[in-house]
Amino acid sequence: MLHYIFNPRSIAIVGASENPLKMGNHVLVSLIEGGYAGKIYPVNPKYDYLLNLKAYPSVETIPDQVDLTVVIVPREQVVQVMEECGRKGVKGAIVIGAGFREAYLCDGDKYHNELAKVTKKYGIKVIGPNTFGVVNLHASLNASFTPAFSKLKAGNIALVAQSGGVCHTIMPYALKYGIGFSKVLSIGNRLNVDFPEMLDYLLTDEDTRSIAIYVEGVDDPRRLMDAARRVVPHKPIVVYKVGRFSKADVASLSHTGSLAGDYMLYDAAFRQVGIIQADDCIELVSMAKALAYQPPARGNRVAVISLTAGPGMILAETCERMGLKLAEFSYKTKSRIDEIVPPMTMRHNPVDLGLLAAEGEKSGEVIKAVFEDECVDAVVIGYLYSWYGDFLKVPVQEVIECHKAHGKPVSVCLAYPEGVWDHLMKTLEENSIPTFPTNELAAKAIWSLVEYGRILRHKYGVSLG
Amino acid sequence: MLHYIFNPRSIAIVGASENPLKMGNHVLVSLIEGGYAGKIYPVNPKYDYLLNLKAYPSVETIPDQVDLTVVIVPREQVVQVMEECGRKGVKGAIVIGAGFREAYLCDGDKYHNELAKVTKKYGIKVIGPNTFGVVNLHASLNASFTPAFSKLKAGNIALVAQSGGVCHTIMPYALKYGIGFSKVLSIGNRLNVDFPEMLDYLLTDEDTRSIAIYVEGVDDPRRLMDAARRVVPHKPIVVYKVGRFSKADVASLSHTGSLAGDYMLYDAAFRQVGIIQADDCIELVSMAKALAYQPPARGNRVAVISLTAGPGMILAETCERMGLKLAEFSYKTKSRIDEIVPPMTMRHNPVDLGLLAAEGEKSGEVIKAVFEDECVDAVVIGYLYSWYGDFLKVPVQEVIECHKAHGKPVSVCLAYPEGVWDHLMKTLEENSIPTFPTNELAAKAIWSLVEYGRILRHKYGVSLG
Repeated sequence: MLHYIFNPRSIAIVGASENPLKMGNHVLVSLIEGGYAGKIYPVNPKYDYLLNLKAYPSVETIPDQVDLTVVIVPREQVVQVMEECGRKGVKGAIVIGAGFREAYLCDGDKYHNELAKVTKKYGIKVIGPNTFGVVNLHASLNASFTPAFSKLKAGNIALVAQSGGVCHTIMPYALKYGIGFSKVLSIGNRLNVDFPEMLDYLLTDEDTRSIAIYVEGVDDPRRLMDAARRVVPHKPIVVYKVGRFSKADVASLSHTGSLAGDYMLYDAAFRQVGIIQADDCIELVSMAKALAYQPPARGNRVAVISLTAGPGMILAETCERMGLKLAEFSYKTKSRIDEIVPPMTMRHNPVDLGLLAAEGEKSGEVIKAVFEDECVDAVVIGYLYSWYGDFLKVPVQEVIECHKAHGKPVSVCLAYPEGVWDHLMKTLEENSIPTFPTNELAAKAIWSLVEYGRILRHKYGVSLG
Repeated sequence: MLHYIFNPRSIAIVGASENPLKMGNHVLVSLIEGGYAGKIYPVNPKYDYLLNLKAYPSVETIPDQVDLTVVIVPREQVVQVMEECGRKGVKGAIVIGAGFREAYLCDGDKYHNELAKVTKKYGIKVIGPNTFGVVNLHASLNASFTPAFSKLKAGNIALVAQSGGVCHTIMPYALKYGIGFSKVLSIGNRLNVDFPEMLDYLLTDEDTRSIAIYVEGVDDPRRLMDAARRVVPHKPIVVYKVGRFSKADVASLSHTGSLAGDYMLYDAAFRQVGIIQADDCIELVSMAKALAYQPPARGNRVAVISLTAGPGMILAETCERMGLKLAEFSYKTKSRIDEIVPPMTMRHNPVDLGLLAAEGEKSGEVIKAVFEDECVDAVVIGYLYSWYGDFLKVPVQEVIECHKAHGKPVSVCLAYPEGVWDHLMKTLEENSIPTFPTNELAAKAIWSLVEYGRILRHKYGVSLG
């Protein structure tokens, strides 16, 4: 049934409005400007037409099947709307308004329970209440109150947040750095679609290769763990969990209606089922990007290649801090590198390519030698825009070919002023090589690929060949 | 004497070239395109003119006083060039080439010692060797091999790195987010200008309000500590220290010629003198930005105000994790907030302004109440671009006025797609309110302001009123 929420053939917007001060207007604009190709039915008895679309007084008066209803009315009216949706045979609903379970001090539970009853009666799946909505970039569906989400690139990361704020924080960053998503949504109060339901749905979603979740607290951690056990062998999950401290717990209760709980328990649970943990929003989306692009590593021995020594040290240190091992190159690799790299620089991991900066071919040979080394499981590369014009040569093709030839995961820091290396980034990313604006993020990305490999091998007995 | 390196009236570029494959070309382009207003004297016996500038066969043949020489020649020739500079009365030099102390396996020490001798003989201050150069944005001076540094905004952060790579990583990020600098440089091998000399210089530099340093390892930590003790009471120092792990130590030795050393010792030393520590490049520059803009806090009780609850939790949790206390609002403040904020949201720290999103004036009243509370020492605010058009009102003027009226530090997360809130960010930053693209960075920024206040009060006996 979740299929109809993400791929509806027709949508009713209850509470649609032409008043730009109303959320019912924002959702309508999101759908229209987002380029949604299905039927849009604004519902509002005050209008005959809304933004050039015929409006209806109620869901039941729409002369067509309705797959999805977006509900933007005060909480007192939601149950009645849902009754109508039920009679109409609507399959899914997005309930944007707040005032339900999270408003436990203000009768929120009453409204929550009534809504739960009616949606159960009709078998309607609900995203929310207390959500900004749902975005499916592969279907040009922006059923949210923020039209700007339509600008995001279609890609293969599914972002499922307990709070819409996190999606709104990640969105501008993702736009700046061209990160692509399959689905973006907040599940808010999780009336009957919670993390487990979303994970099971995304497991079979062809557009999704990695799943990023933002968790404040869950009611039944065991259900989440069971779902994760079904999903993780096939698709990686990264989590950013908030609510590790006392005060934040209270905040969570009055937010999406759940106690954030003891972080130690979550930490143990996540480790047990192999959910990879990130420490902030940017790490969350960076790791998810690496995992959407690249295969897991077969071991934890990482090679660090950088244009200059400082970033090489930062890459190496970040990898070691995350628990990776700097690979000890084979004698053969060391000899090959010594033949190519001029003396006076670091060379045997980290490898400093500074003196070969203008010689793309030689840099490429070094990269090839490193990828071919059987003592290397994963490669992280750091390039920074330096010097003048196109003096500096980034061996982009060699990186792509090496990755293809050896199947070893790789992540690349590509730090450059707007414009100058966009074409390099594009070529790398079109060939599934993830790029990052800092060395620290590139290192954490490669860690996530090593960690996912470890999880698959050790927790799920998956052979990575 | 360092004054002449950052504000030279005339510059000789030894090894200048018209060949875009040579660094001597890149430096010349940097100076010209950067808009340097002083005299530029290319030195290269092969040319009469270089990029329309008259070229000279040697430094001594320049018919003018030379304040600064940029040296881009092989290490074998550096000593001779420096002899000439000495006879000519040159006051400072930037030695870009490598192969000195860091190349300890390849006679590097020999070249280092010879260079040390000649520069001591003539009293020439040297940035480098093994540096990308020096940028003084207030003097339109880009004496580096990367012309793109001229695009940076002039501001009040001095960035002093042991490795130029870190400056090259931060530069694109700073361009994207409009972060301004006074000076940007790598001190490389630190022949006779090391961190202590730079700190003392920046202490009296009127364009510098905060100092960000990237450290791999130092030869004489006590000198650094002594310099920090002189500087920190007047200007905050933030450090990003790399070299905490074994392998990275070896890397550092073959990089800028120093053992990175035991991180625990550095950690203790930094704490002892009140140098604030960052965990990556972006944190380094974010904290330095906050410290350049805002006064230190008088205590550690922080108020969290956000547009929506999730980001409020992230802000609160990040603050608590860094050791801050969430302020317990006074009864008066709570009552004032209760009068303005509709029920059903978090309100007594964190404060969730979601239901007032479209009401800038009311949001401003809440912000005012929070700033006025005597139980609040610092304020962090999180706003995310949401909804459609200009429905959402960010109470920018109120934030500016409150900060001015109460002198309490404030940092703001302003996450928005390119363009839509540039004017808000500009207004805030022109009024010394630092903005950040994520809640985590805004929280870490406010932590740095609280931490600096603690350092001033507890370590240096400074009264903050």
